[in-house]
Amino acid sequence: MDDPDDPRLDDFRDLSRADRRPDRPGGRGLVIAEGVVVVRRLLASRYPVRALLGIRRRIEELLPDLAATTTPWSPAAGPAVPAYVASAEVMAQAVGFHLNRGVLATADRAAFPAADDLLRSARTVAVLEGVGDHENLGALFRNVAALGVDAVLLGEGCADPLYRRSVRVSMGTVLFVPFAPLDGWPDTAFDRLRGAGFRTVALTPAGEHTLRTAGLADAARVAVLLGSEGPGLTDAALAAADVRVRIPMARGVDSINVATAGAVAFATLADRA
Amino acid sequence: MDDPDDPRLDDFRDLSRADRRPDRPGGRGLVIAEGVVVVRRLLASRYPVRALLGIRRRIEELLPDLAATTTPWSPAAGPAVPAYVASAEVMAQAVGFHLNRGVLATADRAAFPAADDLLRSARTVAVLEGVGDHENLGALFRNVAALGVDAVLLGEGCADPLYRRSVRVSMGTVLFVPFAPLDGWPDTAFDRLRGAGFRTVALTPAGEHTLRTAGLADAARVAVLLGSEGPGLTDAALAAADVRVRIPMARGVDSINVATAGAVAFATLADRA
Repeated sequence: MDDPDDPRLDDFRDLSRADRRPDRPGGRGLVIAEGVVVVRRLLASRYPVRALLGIRRRIEELLPDLAATTTPWSPAAGPAVPAYVASAEVMAQAVGFHLNRGVLATADRAAFPAADDLLRSARTVAVLEGVGDHENLGALFRNVAALGVDAVLLGEGCADPLYRRSVRVSMGTVLFVPFAPLDGWPDTAFDRLRGAGFRTVALTPAGEHTLRTAGLADAARVAVLLGSEGPGLTDAALAAADVRVRIPMARGVDSINVATAGAVAFATLADRA
Repeated sequence: MDDPDDPRLDDFRDLSRADRRPDRPGGRGLVIAEGVVVVRRLLASRYPVRALLGIRRRIEELLPDLAATTTPWSPAAGPAVPAYVASAEVMAQAVGFHLNRGVLATADRAAFPAADDLLRSARTVAVLEGVGDHENLGALFRNVAALGVDAVLLGEGCADPLYRRSVRVSMGTVLFVPFAPLDGWPDTAFDRLRGAGFRTVALTPAGEHTLRTAGLADAARVAVLLGSEGPGLTDAALAAADVRVRIPMARGVDSINVATAGAVAFATLADRA
């Protein structure tokens, strides 16, 4: 690909806008993966991949993953996903800025699973309220993926996990961790969590318990509630939870990052019977 | 301050180089704090503050902290630290880029405490090897500060905790968490840790124990060893540790961020008897 204006690169053009919601200026709502690791995870995900664009070395690293997209009954047609090779300069011109990861992929979005379906098979879920920062959200998904949480439910006011920055910070884990909006926030949402057998645990600096004293060691199903880093969970969510748990803070420090607080809770819960 | 070339602003000039080591081009090794919260922590720290530069509203927020720097036996002389008020534009011209936090402070470095002194009074310490990324290092200090770790010891190959980006990501906690280099890495260093009564616990994906099974619940003194995010701890450090502990990973994810892994260990240890 020598011509940055080639229409086959339209997916990648003006990249800082391509993942915006379609109702925003320039927004098309595409899922965008950056770097070999994340592109590999996108190719293995349920999202329909549209195309790859990368420097030769990066595309070559991904050839086995591309080969896996070949339709079994027409192998001669080759991979179902087109991959365009370009120089770093042509890529930068098409994309609008310089990329240091050398490869990109775009995909269409897919419908969410139903929250109730996720709850039926999960043992531990993270329920987020007002986590509006894409980097915090991505970091949370990374910790959810690593520490054995089965699904993420999005309460009111959360950012879009499939936004480019979130995908990148999550290291592509948003592409395989099941997540869904949890409607009817907070009352109906909590009814659904309880109806599915979940003990609802709100993380808050003002919690009456610690993770050790909250009696979670033998809880069959636990939903960990996390709020935004500034205001935390709303009073309504705190009141609706079965138990409020604090992570004890030292030295007058008033909080840790929401993704880190989540990790502490997830790791403790992963260790339960 | 109307003139960005005023020599009283020399401390703040070309800021992206001012915190570099003095032996590097443009480097002067100053400690630089950005934003009200971090500047406040710098003013309360043991580092000799040289000057503040900020927009009026931010300097006004810091007036009580500045007043606390007044020499008790000559109160008429006012605060010992000069604070310069400038417009955002003049600040940007002096500093070389636009700052969105509205206030800066510079300080001189101070000598490290002796590692053995830190070990004598600490119950839990973090020992870092090869943590060369300033943001990971800053995030680690933030978690150390919040989760009750008493001090940080820097083994071989660590970045400078007082570098501007580390100070910022740590939210200024590097300014009050005691830290020191731990010389003689690894053999002499481990001898000193053991001599001070510390059980040395290496965090590694290949650990033979989890935090729960490692028998730390009644350990009087624990040193948590953390390596860099890519290669992890060196074989020499892993072999020298008393016990190697893993945080179990799910879904084939091979690691979490080093600051997050630290937080999980620190929070578990903070809960011990």
